[in-house]
Amino acid sequence: MQRRDAQQCRLRRISASKPSHRMRSQGGVTEIWDPAEDQFQCAGFAPMRDTIQTNSLSLPKFFPAPRLVYIEQGTGVMGISYPGCPETYHKDQQFSSGQGQRGMSGDQHQKVHRILRGDVVAVPAGAAHWCYNDGNEELIAVSVLDLNNNANQLDQNLRGFMLAGGQSRHGQERYERSSQRYAGQSEWSHEETFHNIFRGFDEELMAEAFNVPRETVKRMRQDSNRGLIVKCREDMRIMSPDQEEQEEFEYSPRNGLEETFCTMKIKHNIELQRQADVYTKQGGRINIANQQKLPILQFLDMSAERGHLMPNALYTPHWSMTDNRVVYALRGELNAQIVDERGNTIMNERVREGEMFVIPQFYATLMRAGNDGFEWVSFKSSSQPMKNPMAGSISVMRAMPIDVISNAYQISPSEAEQLKTNRDPQSMLLSPARTSS
Amino acid sequence: MQRRDAQQCRLRRISASKPSHRMRSQGGVTEIWDPAEDQFQCAGFAPMRDTIQTNSLSLPKFFPAPRLVYIEQGTGVMGISYPGCPETYHKDQQFSSGQGQRGMSGDQHQKVHRILRGDVVAVPAGAAHWCYNDGNEELIAVSVLDLNNNANQLDQNLRGFMLAGGQSRHGQERYERSSQRYAGQSEWSHEETFHNIFRGFDEELMAEAFNVPRETVKRMRQDSNRGLIVKCREDMRIMSPDQEEQEEFEYSPRNGLEETFCTMKIKHNIELQRQADVYTKQGGRINIANQQKLPILQFLDMSAERGHLMPNALYTPHWSMTDNRVVYALRGELNAQIVDERGNTIMNERVREGEMFVIPQFYATLMRAGNDGFEWVSFKSSSQPMKNPMAGSISVMRAMPIDVISNAYQISPSEAEQLKTNRDPQSMLLSPARTSS
Amino acid sequence: MQRRDAQQCRLRRISASKPSHRMRSQGGVTEIWDPAEDQFQCAGFAPMRDTIQTNSLSLPKFFPAPRLVYIEQGTGVMGISYPGCPETYHKDQQFSSGQGQRGMSGDQHQKVHRILRGDVVAVPAGAAHWCYNDGNEELIAVSVLDLNNNANQLDQNLRGFMLAGGQSRHGQERYERSSQRYAGQSEWSHEETFHNIFRGFDEELMAEAFNVPRETVKRMRQDSNRGLIVKCREDMRIMSPDQEEQEEFEYSPRNGLEETFCTMKIKHNIELQRQADVYTKQGGRINIANQQKLPILQFLDMSAERGHLMPNALYTPHWSMTDNRVVYALRGELNAQIVDERGNTIMNERVREGEMFVIPQFYATLMRAGNDGFEWVSFKSSSQPMKNPMAGSISVMRAMPIDVISNAYQISPSEAEQLKTNRDPQSMLLSPARTSS
Repeated sequence: MQRRDAQQCRLRRISASKPSHRMRSQGGVTEIWDPAEDQFQCAGFAPMRDTIQTNSLSLPKFFPAPRLVYIEQGTGVMGISYPGCPETYHKDQQFSSGQGQRGMSGDQHQKVHRILRGDVVAVPAGAAHWCYNDGNEELIAVSVLDLNNNANQLDQNLRGFMLAGGQSRHGQERYERSSQRYAGQSEWSHEETFHNIFRGFDEELMAEAFNVPRETVKRMRQDSNRGLIVKCREDMRIMSPDQEEQEEFEYSPRNGLEETFCTMKIKHNIELQRQADVYTKQGGRINIANQQKLPILQFLDMSAERGHLMPNALYTPHWSMTDNRVVYALRGELNAQIVDERGNTIMNERVREGEMFVIPQFYATLMRAGNDGFEWVSFKSSSQPMKNPMAGSISVMRAMPIDVISNAYQISPSEAEQLKTNRDPQSMLLSPARTSS
Repeated sequence: MQRRDAQQCRLRRISASKPSHRMRSQGGVTEIWDPAEDQFQCAGFAPMRDTIQTNSLSLPKFFPAPRLVYIEQGTGVMGISYPGCPETYHKDQQFSSGQGQRGMSGDQHQKVHRILRGDVVAVPAGAAHWCYNDGNEELIAVSVLDLNNNANQLDQNLRGFMLAGGQSRHGQERYERSSQRYAGQSEWSHEETFHNIFRGFDEELMAEAFNVPRETVKRMRQDSNRGLIVKCREDMRIMSPDQEEQEEFEYSPRNGLEETFCTMKIKHNIELQRQADVYTKQGGRINIANQQKLPILQFLDMSAERGHLMPNALYTPHWSMTDNRVVYALRGELNAQIVDERGNTIMNERVREGEMFVIPQFYATLMRAGNDGFEWVSFKSSSQPMKNPMAGSISVMRAMPIDVISNAYQISPSEAEQLKTNRDPQSMLLSPARTSS
Repeated sequence: MQRRDAQQCRLRRISASKPSHRMRSQGGVTEIWDPAEDQFQCAGFAPMRDTIQTNSLSLPKFFPAPRLVYIEQGTGVMGISYPGCPETYHKDQQFSSGQGQRGMSGDQHQKVHRILRGDVVAVPAGAAHWCYNDGNEELIAVSVLDLNNNANQLDQNLRGFMLAGGQSRHGQERYERSSQRYAGQSEWSHEETFHNIFRGFDEELMAEAFNVPRETVKRMRQDSNRGLIVKCREDMRIMSPDQEEQEEFEYSPRNGLEETFCTMKIKHNIELQRQADVYTKQGGRINIANQQKLPILQFLDMSAERGHLMPNALYTPHWSMTDNRVVYALRGELNAQIVDERGNTIMNERVREGEMFVIPQFYATLMRAGNDGFEWVSFKSSSQPMKNPMAGSISVMRAMPIDVISNAYQISPSEAEQLKTNRDPQSMLLSPARTSS
């Protein structure tokens, strides 16, 4: 089965954009890029950024599409519950809220995951998840939903299903229309979603279903004052397994049928320089989280890339054969050019920290870092993304015979050879200022 | 390849609905739920109900999407022809119309299948099929087409291609607009489809193609008086293999390339209490037909569930991670609540025998049987459906640490523990009246 | 991930059509069938025909969808570049433009493929490709893009991304509105696409990226005068491996992970009579290129069929279970009838050389060759296409018991038996004039 929608990609202009909506909560802020903006609508992407204060909990929720999360700052624990997975990961002495009301057996629940800066976390469509900041600084999580994904059989609209809390309908929440370069009209309203779904059930029926007092049910349905992120009453001492032990477990080899969602690794860190997948001296480096690195991505059909361009270095001109991408600027500045099939420059802009822009599939792009370099993370709608570089050692120029290039551009064979080899041995990332012009 | 369509799921209200169109035939009745109704359009479902009289034949036809059929009543034989499959299943003495005109070799044709109450039958997109009632009571078959399925590269419109018979264009058939709660306006007309496709071919060209007299061709093209289901002139003694023998054959283990559509089992009975997949004392039971039980469903990407709720028992509040569902009420009454992402109750209704309603993917639902219990069959747009229960022993509550629940709802740890465990050991189906309110 | 679009298939009439747009280039002509025409829009097909003069080069370009090419006439070499594939297929003495400017190492580039009449060539979505006519006659290549394909995450619009040349925006190119039977209004304009994408990049940034003089970049961006196909200055002696040696290599058995796009065979010849997949005396023959014959088609999810009907022979009435098809007439005439689910004849026309028409999935068709026979190639949106014939030895009639046919059409058992067997042993292609009318 699949879903489908009246998607159109008539992009005349792409601009880097900031979040268009902001929802303040007791324990943090949720910012949303307008999913009806042309570039996001074409790609089917819904980007968000959560800022969770210390000792605060991003409440359990789920989305109608797979979600890829990048931890921009901080540390915390995250739970992604999956029906039928065992609840024996943590119990008795490991867990104690200090209140002593529970018996010897302690609390049993599904595995929780320690997350930290640089982690990419994969959340399947419809999986309930929560996140607690147990660190000493704000936890910032940037994420993208792939609403066009096969896993979503509804339409392309952004929906957030809250299992607790939720924004109020009565205007208590505040949002600010960002006064930025994006000036499009959107029909989308964040007030339409992120509500507590328990509100819709009959209170008495719920009490019977959970077999709890109606007073408890009243609390579950309450959404009026704390929003999507709440302050915790005291430190939650949620223990996650020792980091290395966990990693070891998660890297266990595939063993057939037992490798289900329950035991699959759900995160991969793309911050470490020594694990870079692409490295060019004076150019920069790229770390990738694709289905080879993080097998669960095969089911989500998404992937991510963390990049670092040196000052004034270039990302080779290229196009993607496989996916739409959305680039989120972490640090520094970038000049980004995107060209469509008419040869029109649909983007030629300076991108700054905190902004996002989409590079549509097949559209050619050429990017250059500013004087202080540029760092980014990008989210892609394929778990095995493939780029087609135009310059450098694995480029489309390199693949063609000199005679073809020479005749195609009416240049001499030696000029054609320069086009093929003058960037050797660089491939994706190019060092600055080697132009012979 | 895939097809796509301007699907939208802006469901403000879901109501249980009865068929909107009825086509009377010589040997029975075909009822159709309006596929343009919002709930069916969103899910891409086209539901139908065929009532075939004794000694009557539902004429050969095919549809542009996979069809899952549930036999609600009666017994019969069914043929699903697939190009290239062998025609040696039945011959000589097994087959005889008693008229003796055929030679010693008898009739060779593809396998026919005995079907009976409780069978789920899988019909691939584009496969011609027919059904003959050789029993002593009316044969009632409820079915759903998954028009959004990958196998359909046309648009989402319901199309019925008749290889014989067909409704008349000239008004002989009758239909009644059901005077029920569904009051929507629909552009869809059943008069647009279910016609004899041979009418469109040149008569002489057809006679040449089949190498038969034009008189035979005239008969093939006739669609004016008998409709979609015909009375047979005398009992057809179509022999199907002895039931157990057939089952044994069909359960043969997978042996690689030979397991094609020709040899795959096409039906699975979901009526037997002793084979229930879920059972709760005083709650009820569920039988499932998914791709593990009936491997051909992997290719159809559909599945079915047969359920039985005890009087006043509850179906745990839950949402589907994987599929849209349509529920058909077989017996008894159900109070069904469905909640959307805005926390709105989009359905809160009593569902009665013979009615259908859609539970969209990701939308939360909570259901309670009436005083006489409730029985249903549901059809799903995934061959490996997965639900996320909110209450009970495998619920999302159970998966979360007590501290998370306690902080999320501002309740005490002991109240949180109650939310997790007060329904133990029940999971999907919950016994009534254990509420402590 | 997938893309989707507001596709509709409300086909009231299908007509054979000729190209609606023509782009003249220095070295040939590119003709395009209007992709907005109802039949092509429904199927998501964009058909094209390139006529490349001798010693001319169809410039490197890529498309947002997989492309299947049939070489109607001539011989040449073709390059399909794929990022990361080795560039060691041809070097030093094999390659020499005769100008001696390059060093001892010669030119390294990716494999080039010899193509000739009757070849079906598979070009993945987003793969840059070029074609050079090194033969003695015009090279004519007919091709179809499958814009509905999963590999395309943009919308269904035809886009051509030129890596060199490109049509001018300033009216130098000419196009002629074909004065044919197709009289539909189309919003599509070929002026919107097939432009040089390098035009959109900053000249200085490009020079830096390629590390070449700005003069070279100016040449790369030039699109004003030579179009999509250029005359070469002198014969390119691009050597392709000896034909048989290449074939041997390409037929190497699957060896797991090493069988990547880099080593996969990309073409299959469907011209040879002795390799016909279907043959009927006085009927004709069919050669097929599906994923069994050409495994890369599994990834493209397309296939092709080359057919030859003898004078007045018939293609058995049938429907496709799996795919939309577009038929291109190579030689002779055909009377084609197509019937929809309402029993309406939506096509009943004489199709002539050079015309195309779509047979939508599930729609029944019956075709008869003219007095001089008929030859065609058809392109399909499935890599494993399956037809359901209505007459002949593997037909849906043959699959049904005589009693079913007899009751369905109210004919005698012996007439029913004639329907089943009177075309034996013929199946797909039927010899003419055996009608007993």
